[in-house]
Amino acid sequence: MTKSSSRRRKKEQEIIVAPPENLDYPGFAFDITHKDPSSKARIGRLQTPHGTIETPNYIFCGTKASIKNLSPIAMREAKTDIILANTYHVMIQPGADLVEKMGGLHKFMQWDGPMMTDSGGFQIFSMGHGSVADEIKGRNKGKREKSVLKITEEGAKFQSYWDGSMLHLTPEESMTIQRKLGADLIYQLDECTAYHVDKDYTARSMERSHRWGDRSLAEFARHHDGKQALYGIVQGGVYEDLRDISCAYVNDRAFFGQAVGGSLGGSVEEMFDVVNMCMVRLREDRPVHLLGIGRIEDVFNFVRVGIDTFDCVTPTRIARHGMALIKGQPGERINLTNARFRDDPEPLDPRLDIPASRDFSKAYIHHLLKSGELLGMQLVAQHNVATMNLLMREVREAIKNGTLDALQKEWLPE
Amino acid sequence: MTKSSSRRRKKEQEIIVAPPENLDYPGFAFDITHKDPSSKARIGRLQTPHGTIETPNYIFCGTKASIKNLSPIAMREAKTDIILANTYHVMIQPGADLVEKMGGLHKFMQWDGPMMTDSGGFQIFSMGHGSVADEIKGRNKGKREKSVLKITEEGAKFQSYWDGSMLHLTPEESMTIQRKLGADLIYQLDECTAYHVDKDYTARSMERSHRWGDRSLAEFARHHDGKQALYGIVQGGVYEDLRDISCAYVNDRAFFGQAVGGSLGGSVEEMFDVVNMCMVRLREDRPVHLLGIGRIEDVFNFVRVGIDTFDCVTPTRIARHGMALIKGQPGERINLTNARFRDDPEPLDPRLDIPASRDFSKAYIHHLLKSGELLGMQLVAQHNVATMNLLMREVREAIKNGTLDALQKEWLPE
Repeated sequence: MTKSSSRRRKKEQEIIVAPPENLDYPGFAFDITHKDPSSKARIGRLQTPHGTIETPNYIFCGTKASIKNLSPIAMREAKTDIILANTYHVMIQPGADLVEKMGGLHKFMQWDGPMMTDSGGFQIFSMGHGSVADEIKGRNKGKREKSVLKITEEGAKFQSYWDGSMLHLTPEESMTIQRKLGADLIYQLDECTAYHVDKDYTARSMERSHRWGDRSLAEFARHHDGKQALYGIVQGGVYEDLRDISCAYVNDRAFFGQAVGGSLGGSVEEMFDVVNMCMVRLREDRPVHLLGIGRIEDVFNFVRVGIDTFDCVTPTRIARHGMALIKGQPGERINLTNARFRDDPEPLDPRLDIPASRDFSKAYIHHLLKSGELLGMQLVAQHNVATMNLLMREVREAIKNGTLDALQKEWLPE
Repeated sequence: MTKSSSRRRKKEQEIIVAPPENLDYPGFAFDITHKDPSSKARIGRLQTPHGTIETPNYIFCGTKASIKNLSPIAMREAKTDIILANTYHVMIQPGADLVEKMGGLHKFMQWDGPMMTDSGGFQIFSMGHGSVADEIKGRNKGKREKSVLKITEEGAKFQSYWDGSMLHLTPEESMTIQRKLGADLIYQLDECTAYHVDKDYTARSMERSHRWGDRSLAEFARHHDGKQALYGIVQGGVYEDLRDISCAYVNDRAFFGQAVGGSLGGSVEEMFDVVNMCMVRLREDRPVHLLGIGRIEDVFNFVRVGIDTFDCVTPTRIARHGMALIKGQPGERINLTNARFRDDPEPLDPRLDIPASRDFSKAYIHHLLKSGELLGMQLVAQHNVATMNLLMREVREAIKNGTLDALQKEWLPE
């Protein structure tokens, strides 16, 4: 054995930490209030220290501790119940210590409702695998070189796109950072494997994510004061036997909630199959979050297998390009920069009771977008958020009434 | 005489149009309700078909039919009474015909209060003289070549920065365009001379502006339906004898209001002297607008010589650079991108009752600005608008109470 391979083996030695057997989440609860008889869709009440939301629900992405160009008041006007911030971006700028000093993310962002943070892993790994997350595309390009990435048993090393400094994110550090940020719902650190990695790597990565889950739980328990609740993450790529193992792991541990993560495959059908193979295995008494998936069609597909919460950057990201989500629009959206809207006097959607959707003409928003006026993006972003919240309200109503199929036809005509 | 100079003389032949002797402005009124005994400052009520405002007041610039990144609701929250749009930008994109088809600027922008448009001249001439107006700096640079300019007795020819087409703005065309846009308070076409032109050119230009004023009045009268009121503009550069002539001209004509325009000189002192030499000559029964001047210090200086309304892009433009206007701040503003605000937990100004000023910490806004998050600019812009409106409310109160000097010390400490 060469010296080099011996050193590598030493580094790769597994770090085993005993997780807590039980954890109380006194400020939290998840109660299922209704089940759809014809699918696994369900209505729940998710209680957090910052309020209770009804599920299924949609969590809007405030990537850098801000929903793109929308104030918390604008989010509330659009009937938003819950938002998230990305730990990766916030830890880089302005940093978790600064946010803690300012009283935590709720106070910093002036959002007094329920909030989620992810573990920071997704962005690190999506950068490491060479596919920079969509949300950070197109802005500050000069600063965002591909980050150098090294994944070890310890955690992930990466380079800050902000100042070039080397950062190290371990499960323990992720817990520390998320505690400083202070969101209600937080995540274990996991490795989010890319679609192109093979089964062997996926399996080894999954096992490591489980060890990281135990380390996250142990670190979480050391400081647990009832203000936060921890979610575990199911890994295993597109492989049913691995998903089976990973679901068993998450089911067994003292998480408050659970999320379906990792690679979900390369097509809509494969994504559905992978999520479904998790949903038939995961325990039903915990809230289930689907990470990073949230087109209108996805919502209809995945509430039926029991998904309780969604998050996706789509509603606010596409607003920057003039795309408006419209109930009943084939393809879900319209492109307001299209010349056909130049003299369209109609509003985006008079069924929504906010000025952005009800009062301004498409012609005006078209003009704003063509002129590079930021108000255009602001109005479309708020409209898109309002549309997704309308969708979720109507989905919940339809689950209660057993009319999900009919609602889907209203939203997504052939 | 050569053929060429004969052609030039022919082109330069004066176009003389008889203006209407009298014009009724039935939907409009200007009543002076209070005069400061120790200066020419005054309180007025300016009535328009879209509401009555108290003066002195501040008119915020919605250059391209949009206040930068602020909705009409955000403007109202910041207690805005009146806004303006720039005819030049709107005629280029989306065009006056489109705006008319959409029901006019009020409906297009969803602003139901009083509104002003300028004649379109200022931007054309500032571009022609090589000094592109500040408001259009820094955006869409590729599209904004210096426009080819030709000023004739007829009007001004210029090239659209939008599509390169040649446009011709005459006094009659300016009236037609402004009628289609439908603002309450509109302007005669004038040539805004630059600081560097000599007295001879200034005099000839002023005389032409007077002829353009008569043509504007005649064209305005042809379609006058009581929905709009026309302002005349005093020209004459820094020359007292020319200002004297120009004030006499404006005083004599059937304008509803009057504005001090043209070059006001190269220093604060010279600007004050030029405005003052107009104000002692202009009739006192009409509202007087000061074009494009509106720092906090300017407001204090010029209300004292009788200016009733101000407009300036400053409050919203500087927000893009993280500059916040603060009552009592030496230098009027703070730069929120400065590192000293990184961990400042205090809000911008708790004396203002909007979330942008009262609830968010400077640390958060600093973070947003550093991260390129548009919400930062949005919050600062609304705060700056609210601050200027607070200034105007307090200035009006101080004029009524005879405490303008004390108020100035509060706003602008040594």
